[in-house]
Amino acid sequence: MARWESDSRGRLERAALALYSERGFEQTTVAEIARQAGLTERTFFRHFADKREVLFWGSDYLRELLVRTVASAPAATTPMAAIAAALEAAATTVFHESHEHSRQRQVVIAANAGLQERELSKLAALAAAMADALRRRGVSDSTAILTAEAGIAVFKIAFERWVDEDSQRDLLQLIRESFDELKAAITGN
Amino acid sequence: MARWESDSRGRLERAALALYSERGFEQTTVAEIARQAGLTERTFFRHFADKREVLFWGSDYLRELLVRTVASAPAATTPMAAIAAALEAAATTVFHESHEHSRQRQVVIAANAGLQERELSKLAALAAAMADALRRRGVSDSTAILTAEAGIAVFKIAFERWVDEDSQRDLLQLIRESFDELKAAITGN
Repeated sequence: MARWESDSRGRLERAALALYSERGFEQTTVAEIARQAGLTERTFFRHFADKREVLFWGSDYLRELLVRTVASAPAATTPMAAIAAALEAAATTVFHESHEHSRQRQVVIAANAGLQERELSKLAALAAAMADALRRRGVSDSTAILTAEAGIAVFKIAFERWVDEDSQRDLLQLIRESFDELKAAITGN
Repeated sequence: MARWESDSRGRLERAALALYSERGFEQTTVAEIARQAGLTERTFFRHFADKREVLFWGSDYLRELLVRTVASAPAATTPMAAIAAALEAAATTVFHESHEHSRQRQVVIAANAGLQERELSKLAALAAAMADALRRRGVSDSTAILTAEAGIAVFKIAFERWVDEDSQRDLLQLIRESFDELKAAITGN
């Protein structure tokens, strides 16, 4: 993708997030997003299938990263450690330096029931993809699913805390803390 | 609710599930459900807001049961044991003797992306309600959420296994096994 194309994508994304935050997702049109970004509607549709896609396109890349990280963990790695490594990889790459973007996106999604359902569906797909990756390492079906689902629960908590907090604590650190909390809760302290 | 009303509700529900299974959810109309049940559309709408509601109305009762069971656990009960007690209560009441109904419902939902999103959203709401109930017992925010989410993950696995299996194993037993598997996975084997 040529440089200017990648820039127009970023401009559209920022314009969309700003408008969704200001007026709400439903009330914003593609025409307005394009205008705010100084681009045409046609350019918008070259980058995104619709205005919802602006909020969710990143999940494909995230899924690939998670799956790749689980798959490439050393053979002796436990299922839970492989999932933790994947989520930590996401924290240090995909979400690195995207705090403000992630925060805005979360506020937009929290305000719209349809977007919340879509977000849950994407998270479920991430869990399913990680469970698949574990199965391919020879992990049993149920342990694979449970570990991946627990990992996504940990990630959700850590992520919400990260975007909510004024203090801008490190996502990586918050993920590790959440894993410890889960372990304590499951083992009964 | 008078006896005949409760019967017409059950007839509508069975007719709807049969039609959704046969032709698919999208392809079934309320008129067809009513006709198959030998009732009027008006009667349908006295019981259900729309045809999706037929599949999801039970989740309100389920949520109340889960919350009540968490709330009434003895003071010394750990958060995870309180969640386990709630899910076990659901297994022995709500889902007792509803194996065939649950199986059919699951097949219908699995075939439709919109219904899957709705199901995930209902499960997330159940997790949030149990987390609230734990918080009211004085459990910290993050432990409450993690424990409730892990519990719902356990329930999902057990439930899928229960409806998938030809052998008709006990849901209660499957929930206990899944909890054990989760514990083993989290503690590193």
